[in-house]
Amino acid sequence: MKRGTALLLGWVCCGLGARAGTHPCLVFREQTLASFRQEWRDYPLMERSVNRQIALADAALATPVEVPVPVDPAGGYTHSCHRSNAVRMLACGQSYLLTSKPAYREYVRTVLLRYADSYPDLGPHPARANQAPGRLFWQLLNETVWLVQTIQAYDAVCDGLTAEDRDRIEAGVFRPMVVFILEENAAVFDLIHNHATWAAAAVGMCGMVMDEPEWVEQSLMGSAKDGQSGFLRQMDLLFSPDGYYAEGPYYQRYVLEPFMTFALALDNQRPEIGIFRRRDGVLLRAVETLLQLSDADGELFALNDCIKGKSLRSPEVVAAIAIAHARGDGQGNPALQALARSHGEVHVSPEGLQLAKAVAAGGQDAFVRKSMVIRDGVDGAGGAVVLLRGGDRARQADPAGLELVFKATTQGMGHGHFDRLSFIVHEGGREVLRDYGSARFINVLQKNGGRYLPENKTWAKQSVAHHVLVLDERSHFDGDTDRGDAHVPHLLYAGLDAADFQYASAEDSHAVEGWCMRRTLARFEWEPIPGAVSRAYVLDLLEATGGVKTQTADLPLYPAGEFIHANFEYEAAPVLQPLGRSAGYEHLWVTGRSVNELPQTASMTWQQGHRFYSWMTCTSPGMQWMFTLSGAGDPQFNLRREAGVLLRVPAGESVAFASVLEAHGNYDSQSESVVDSVPSISGVEWVLRDETLAVVCVTTVEGARHLFAFSREDAPEKAHDFHWEGVCYQWVGNAFHQPHQPTLPSQ
Amino acid sequence: MKRGTALLLGWVCCGLGARAGTHPCLVFREQTLASFRQEWRDYPLMERSVNRQIALADAALATPVEVPVPVDPAGGYTHSCHRSNAVRMLACGQSYLLTSKPAYREYVRTVLLRYADSYPDLGPHPARANQAPGRLFWQLLNETVWLVQTIQAYDAVCDGLTAEDRDRIEAGVFRPMVVFILEENAAVFDLIHNHATWAAAAVGMCGMVMDEPEWVEQSLMGSAKDGQSGFLRQMDLLFSPDGYYAEGPYYQRYVLEPFMTFALALDNQRPEIGIFRRRDGVLLRAVETLLQLSDADGELFALNDCIKGKSLRSPEVVAAIAIAHARGDGQGNPALQALARSHGEVHVSPEGLQLAKAVAAGGQDAFVRKSMVIRDGVDGAGGAVVLLRGGDRARQADPAGLELVFKATTQGMGHGHFDRLSFIVHEGGREVLRDYGSARFINVLQKNGGRYLPENKTWAKQSVAHHVLVLDERSHFDGDTDRGDAHVPHLLYAGLDAADFQYASAEDSHAVEGWCMRRTLARFEWEPIPGAVSRAYVLDLLEATGGVKTQTADLPLYPAGEFIHANFEYEAAPVLQPLGRSAGYEHLWVTGRSVNELPQTASMTWQQGHRFYSWMTCTSPGMQWMFTLSGAGDPQFNLRREAGVLLRVPAGESVAFASVLEAHGNYDSQSESVVDSVPSISGVEWVLRDETLAVVCVTTVEGARHLFAFSREDAPEKAHDFHWEGVCYQWVGNAFHQPHQPTLPSQ
Repeated sequence: MKRGTALLLGWVCCGLGARAGTHPCLVFREQTLASFRQEWRDYPLMERSVNRQIALADAALATPVEVPVPVDPAGGYTHSCHRSNAVRMLACGQSYLLTSKPAYREYVRTVLLRYADSYPDLGPHPARANQAPGRLFWQLLNETVWLVQTIQAYDAVCDGLTAEDRDRIEAGVFRPMVVFILEENAAVFDLIHNHATWAAAAVGMCGMVMDEPEWVEQSLMGSAKDGQSGFLRQMDLLFSPDGYYAEGPYYQRYVLEPFMTFALALDNQRPEIGIFRRRDGVLLRAVETLLQLSDADGELFALNDCIKGKSLRSPEVVAAIAIAHARGDGQGNPALQALARSHGEVHVSPEGLQLAKAVAAGGQDAFVRKSMVIRDGVDGAGGAVVLLRGGDRARQADPAGLELVFKATTQGMGHGHFDRLSFIVHEGGREVLRDYGSARFINVLQKNGGRYLPENKTWAKQSVAHHVLVLDERSHFDGDTDRGDAHVPHLLYAGLDAADFQYASAEDSHAVEGWCMRRTLARFEWEPIPGAVSRAYVLDLLEATGGVKTQTADLPLYPAGEFIHANFEYEAAPVLQPLGRSAGYEHLWVTGRSVNELPQTASMTWQQGHRFYSWMTCTSPGMQWMFTLSGAGDPQFNLRREAGVLLRVPAGESVAFASVLEAHGNYDSQSESVVDSVPSISGVEWVLRDETLAVVCVTTVEGARHLFAFSREDAPEKAHDFHWEGVCYQWVGNAFHQPHQPTLPSQ
Repeated sequence: MKRGTALLLGWVCCGLGARAGTHPCLVFREQTLASFRQEWRDYPLMERSVNRQIALADAALATPVEVPVPVDPAGGYTHSCHRSNAVRMLACGQSYLLTSKPAYREYVRTVLLRYADSYPDLGPHPARANQAPGRLFWQLLNETVWLVQTIQAYDAVCDGLTAEDRDRIEAGVFRPMVVFILEENAAVFDLIHNHATWAAAAVGMCGMVMDEPEWVEQSLMGSAKDGQSGFLRQMDLLFSPDGYYAEGPYYQRYVLEPFMTFALALDNQRPEIGIFRRRDGVLLRAVETLLQLSDADGELFALNDCIKGKSLRSPEVVAAIAIAHARGDGQGNPALQALARSHGEVHVSPEGLQLAKAVAAGGQDAFVRKSMVIRDGVDGAGGAVVLLRGGDRARQADPAGLELVFKATTQGMGHGHFDRLSFIVHEGGREVLRDYGSARFINVLQKNGGRYLPENKTWAKQSVAHHVLVLDERSHFDGDTDRGDAHVPHLLYAGLDAADFQYASAEDSHAVEGWCMRRTLARFEWEPIPGAVSRAYVLDLLEATGGVKTQTADLPLYPAGEFIHANFEYEAAPVLQPLGRSAGYEHLWVTGRSVNELPQTASMTWQQGHRFYSWMTCTSPGMQWMFTLSGAGDPQFNLRREAGVLLRVPAGESVAFASVLEAHGNYDSQSESVVDSVPSISGVEWVLRDETLAVVCVTTVEGARHLFAFSREDAPEKAHDFHWEGVCYQWVGNAFHQPHQPTLPSQ
């Protein structure tokens, strides 16, 4: 951290508070403001975005100011009031900068003076729970978010305030708040965690506005200024080299607000730090990685804790897009321009204006969601998320735009789920095989004060809530986050070059003690029959070997949509009982189960929107197919009722599931025409499983057979061969697929 | 029927088949075709619509023709093939008319000759079930639909065919098909039912194209030509004077295709009949009524049997809009123009062109969904659907655009549900309190061949699947359709003049033997607090009196969304059991129930999309609140799992539920801000229930009280008064509402 320390040596004098004539200094600066004022109306995206902020500011002016005594947890009245005040002050501050109308400045002044009167006397929040409490809010986190927004509002207006007002506001609000964060909550401030990033950004931006270089240095280097914590260390440790944030896309979006906003302010004031070039531009890569972690509708993939419905249209992402566009390679980025165009808005900032200009001048390229490997772990060796999307066809609203998300990542700390080697599938913005997300109604007062619900721990995080292998009804790492954080999975290889056949293979030797799990996922397409609706397929080989004998091995699946058909005998349960007693099993009702032996390939079809999906699994003796429904053991009705299935085999010392997911057909609700509601694949079988190869054969309803083979190790130049039904197959590389036409015995 | 008979006397000679030079004669005619060809590219709506048909025709040309031997039920391969052939022939026929390209004509010719080769030898369809079977399709209905489309395709091309081809096609396809419908299925042909309307339109249009006036006369007057059946009689009996079709909106949409298409052809060829003026223009009114029976997204309300997701964008409605626009009062209709503009397409016909022109020239009015009474019954005395929408605010995307649909109609024959005095609520295109619709996956082969599922009868039609009063777990009319058809409910009065207070009251004395049920529904709004999100309310007074003592009285409700909160103690069931044994109760799991006595006002809040909703009910001793989930007793997993509640009281000799539904608050998923997740109403209580009045008092969380009073009879000029808590209220009319401020006792 010597380099960082050296960079900051210039700032050592003690600050005296905001000096008039030096603001704004964070997002806007004097040198960019004049041209912004002249130009914003000329670019439709920016005009619309500014007008939205002005409308918000005007609405604020028309609403009585309330600064209530903090009482409520998240979602409650006082919580919402304080949250709204920050949003309104920011809108008024921006509107003042752009229009110079005194009413906007007066609003910010009035509200801040009200806070200055009350804040110093507040004790810890009465609704505090297990998180570090704030004073305005039940958790310190919300207080730092408030401060990140409010200091920007103050930055916008403070040159227009009297010295007396500035003193009152700084002495009553900002100084005590910084002291509260930096000194009273030094332990949080020095974490390597998203809460600490918000704290660092808040304190650092206060330091810039109020001319307190010490605060800036502490925000960058940690409270002890030793570089062991603080913003720079967080940048170094919280992202993988590919810009993946281990808590998952939902929190990556959240943490990008303080990272990108503070980095922008730093880059404006201290360009010599080169914050956007640090770690080869990891912040810029983090933005692009997040954008890729969304489905065709822009909704973020629900990995780890997340609230569903959060998309690239969220304000943090809109801001990040503009900043990344401006501070990237300088060539402009058509992908970011395409997103801004589809969003119809940009961040209100000089960077947003630059983006709006580029969009106005630019082409009509679409944002392309790509197949890619996103490595996890600070060194890139903590597994990966692999996105398999079938090449450029994802560019179109292709009915076969099946998106496969293979999650073989690190644990992700407290917001991580016990889902080693899991995957989810989306198509056309719809969930096909889904992750539950988190159990939380954020900011809804009646639901545990808007906090995480108890079922987040007992259900949403547990392995059985994911598409993973579960042995003996025990979650990975027995649900112990520390153990999970201590071990990483291993991505063996990925092959993403061919549009019609992509694959990845990963393994994990720690999640289940004494067992090594391996999963190989492939996405493939076959040339559709002329005139037919396109089909897409996922091949899933899930295997595990261990020295310890187990009783049950389960593969749970959560197909989104309505059940259509199963090809085996089953019985619906006359009375619903929970499936188990712990590890999430207590939250699953058993709604039915297969009776008798399953056919060689068991299959189930469901309908989601206008599409049909089928899951085909190669069965083994004793395998049972259960139908489940979430919502058991749920005294407050906190859980959504979502149907699932659970494939169970008596495990023994090894287990191997081979399955195919097929997306097929179409239902047109207006014309009520239905095509291809029946899958094209009728059989999946293991051909070979040994120490070097896994080979399966997939059979179509017309009887065509197709072989898929995968290496056990990453050896792209190694030669393989095997014999089956009189044919000898030979190839070089990790994966292989080919039609199988056995030699017929001569007659 | 003498008038109809006289009108047809001119057509008595026997036809000789289609004569060259007289076609097209149905939708297009020689005199309209030339100008259509010149103009269609000039109007964007029509250009797009024609290009879509041409694209469909071009796709047909590129696809091998298949005319398979009929084998499959609905949704199966051969079913879909024959359906597609009709759609493709129609597209090619239209494309030929507009472009004169021989390839389109040749396609129709080729396909029809293939049918001519095979059709005469077909017997009844092998997948026939309990409906009259067709030959190409499992039911005759599909065959008549096929014929309505195909005869239009033939009409388009036949002048370009050789006499020999025409003879082969007519002798092989159209004549045997007409004979099959008209003679072999005379019993169906002479029904007063949607199946017979399709049959009449098919036969009548064949008669026009093939110069068989006898067929036209039979189609209009019934097979015996006595006017006791046939198209005209169907027009007279199947719609109410307000243009309501008793089977409900879903089937109204369906039956409008043959009604409007055949009427258009008739109006073109036999304008002297004045078909669009018959019964004061009932067909035109039926179109406008259907359009009003849709929510803010254009989705049809799910009354009686219906498949959800069907909207005003369905092709039948698009055609009906154009025809009604052209054949209406001649002034053009801005509402129809607004719909066409929002649909972005029009019917490919001279009438569609007229509409496209009007849209191109017209204003920017939106389609307004109105509050209205839609009477049911052929004489208008069979009850009504009453739409309560709060006036012109429904015009905007108003968050308080709560739409209340009060269904107090006739049974609706075989597709009717046992839901006397039911209601549903939508807001902003979302279901709030929902009807299950029908239990059917239409055209999905694996689901009972695409037919209605057994659960349509055992669950979807039963009273407990609706928001109605159910006594002793027995459905209305004990689930007997004939009994239901024999008795009608009675709309007492409706008051729709004020935007902020609208109401309707209806009663039924037959659905539950020995009992008289009455329901009064009101929709009201209060001035929102400045800056607050608007709220809207529904007041529901459901009462019944009877001479027979009963054990239980149930009010089931199906709130769409996620449970948030209940204000009473309840226990979730550790094991799920079905609620009952019959009448739909066997399909409900009991997921929980209230424990101990309920508070005076019991309430529950749920979230649906970005809005919160609460149901508040005045409780009575012994009342129990149960939580339910559909899907019990469902061996094939045919049902969707939808949560519900069931309010149960020990009935005795009378029962009275007083409840308020409140729509409140907002959840913004991108900013995660939540406002007003708690309802503003905390109390609902009965003030008075006697032979002349029903009075309730509604209390807000701030303690304000508001009285609502409703008359027992329709007497808009009658004076009423009552005293309560020292205040005397007096008014004239059916309904009354006023704040309640009791006189405080003097100290």
